[in-house]
Amino acid sequence: MTTDQRSKAAHTPANPNPHSKRVVLAHGGGGQLTDQLVGEIIQPRLANALLDTMDDSAVFDVSAGPLAFSTDSYVVHPIEFPGGDIGRLAVAGTVNDLAVCGALPRFLSLGLILEEGLELDLLRRVIDSIADTAIEAGVQVATGDTKVVARGQADGIYINTAGVGSLHPKADLAIARIQPGDRVLVSGTVADHGLAVMLQREEAFGIESELRSDTAPLNGLIAELLNACGSDLVFLRDPTRGGLAGVIADLAEVSGFHLTVDETKVPLRHQTNYAAEMLGIDPLDVANEGKVVAVVRAEMEHAALEVMRAHPLGKHAESIGEFSNKQDGLCEIITDVGGRRIVQKPYGEELPRIC
Amino acid sequence: MTTDQRSKAAHTPANPNPHSKRVVLAHGGGGQLTDQLVGEIIQPRLANALLDTMDDSAVFDVSAGPLAFSTDSYVVHPIEFPGGDIGRLAVAGTVNDLAVCGALPRFLSLGLILEEGLELDLLRRVIDSIADTAIEAGVQVATGDTKVVARGQADGIYINTAGVGSLHPKADLAIARIQPGDRVLVSGTVADHGLAVMLQREEAFGIESELRSDTAPLNGLIAELLNACGSDLVFLRDPTRGGLAGVIADLAEVSGFHLTVDETKVPLRHQTNYAAEMLGIDPLDVANEGKVVAVVRAEMEHAALEVMRAHPLGKHAESIGEFSNKQDGLCEIITDVGGRRIVQKPYGEELPRIC
Repeated sequence: MTTDQRSKAAHTPANPNPHSKRVVLAHGGGGQLTDQLVGEIIQPRLANALLDTMDDSAVFDVSAGPLAFSTDSYVVHPIEFPGGDIGRLAVAGTVNDLAVCGALPRFLSLGLILEEGLELDLLRRVIDSIADTAIEAGVQVATGDTKVVARGQADGIYINTAGVGSLHPKADLAIARIQPGDRVLVSGTVADHGLAVMLQREEAFGIESELRSDTAPLNGLIAELLNACGSDLVFLRDPTRGGLAGVIADLAEVSGFHLTVDETKVPLRHQTNYAAEMLGIDPLDVANEGKVVAVVRAEMEHAALEVMRAHPLGKHAESIGEFSNKQDGLCEIITDVGGRRIVQKPYGEELPRIC
Repeated sequence: MTTDQRSKAAHTPANPNPHSKRVVLAHGGGGQLTDQLVGEIIQPRLANALLDTMDDSAVFDVSAGPLAFSTDSYVVHPIEFPGGDIGRLAVAGTVNDLAVCGALPRFLSLGLILEEGLELDLLRRVIDSIADTAIEAGVQVATGDTKVVARGQADGIYINTAGVGSLHPKADLAIARIQPGDRVLVSGTVADHGLAVMLQREEAFGIESELRSDTAPLNGLIAELLNACGSDLVFLRDPTRGGLAGVIADLAEVSGFHLTVDETKVPLRHQTNYAAEMLGIDPLDVANEGKVVAVVRAEMEHAALEVMRAHPLGKHAESIGEFSNKQDGLCEIITDVGGRRIVQKPYGEELPRIC
């Protein structure tokens, strides 16, 4: 075989139909077809000055000081669900991971792993959703990468986002700063995301529901909390995988103080509770994607609640618990029937791929 | 169902055997089993002050100025191959993407997507490899995330890394700075990675080979080039997917100048060439993971080659081409038999999941 013959063989397209409506393996080869996929479907929807250079890295100016850096992969199934999709989740999730650390999220990276056969129309909708959520959160998708794996080696689309942001000047968030008397606030109703996704899966079995995921970027609400509370805002965490139970059990265990939570105060939609009972799941164990748990000094409780409730994403905020000076590191919940139980961090999770 | 019953049901482990030697779905639930997987297998191997906080984000200080940010997902199959594995690739690949933009890589994020059933011993080896390569490159894995998908919904392990680094003070790299007379250098033998991976796959068919992937972090070599050449180093790119052909075709097209490359100068191992002929593939189209293409001013050609050849990863560096003032944007290759052909960027790629 001569060099020219070899060259010609290598240039023969794996899928010769340029009008295919699905992702093909050759879209991931780093050649002309990759340029086409990225240049026609992905880049124009996310267009900004950084991404438009199409370099291997984005370069932007930062000021001196602490920078926060976070990452999350998203494998949610189904790809689209009531109230969101994997694209909205991938932006909001990483924005929220930065925000709960006291950072002001600025730039995201976007890593796509696509399965051969994925409908290009679905990909367009997901990228549109990424673009919309990035605008909502005030962040830019600065750099990206796209890989394609063969049919059966992924399940439609997996997304990784990483994010960077500078720290809010007033942020002084650390679980070690928790003191007896501190209050625990939650920004709204729990378990909506996980149950909306689970019910969407059950729809095949004829179960219909009006439940919607709460997926949303919380950096706006959190910045207002930091502005108002300063260092009286002690700690923040978003109750995603592991749910509210995972967060409150961790707060007690790591701080070393006893935490009492009043279950009747935990905001919970009627239909979410109904869905949880039907599926035999404790809503406290279920993932949220648009809620934050805040620990504040007692004297800041009402001001913090007011700030949350004044924000569209915090209308149903409640104060649900209080740390005591008992140093047993346990979280005790007072149930709706007046009983008491110790909250344990969930062991595993029955239902995977909720985020 | 009472609250307590619901709670108990949710706490029942999905896989009750704590001595399982494989990844189970519940490892991805965000509960105690996730803590165990991350705390016992992942975090200790990568231990550093940033990762040890186990917060949602890593926070580190940066100085004012330009910051580079890059991401890549890795889906290589098989997970381990001669000369490397997906872990070494995931560190080197993103380090190299930063370095070719003139950045000094500092911190990486690590997103793992694991398939249910993955052997924990294999996971340990991959994480060890990530740790070793991070030390070799002088970077820290600062933050991470682990997801688990059901058997058949991934293929063992997919990894995303994102990276940040400050710009080298002497870096002034832009394809638009290319001028007639500039020389094109490559830091060593081409096509070793892609062909080592392909032959590893063929081993099932009884084909054995001593070919090894070149996967390596190039930030050390590139920093030395920048120190020595300053702004006479015009542009850098790592010839990964799309191979050397993809890079040289792009250089000509985007710069707008004619680029002539002498094929006999392109470093190529005998056994790599043999493997490429056997598989009917042009080695110029094949992915490299430890090579860099550098464009330098003509007067810097010899100094740059000396710097490359003095580095363990650049021993076989060669000057392979030169830009002329013909403004046709084409890359022409002079073949080993004295013929001439225009190099085209590969269309797709016959063999997916090479990186």
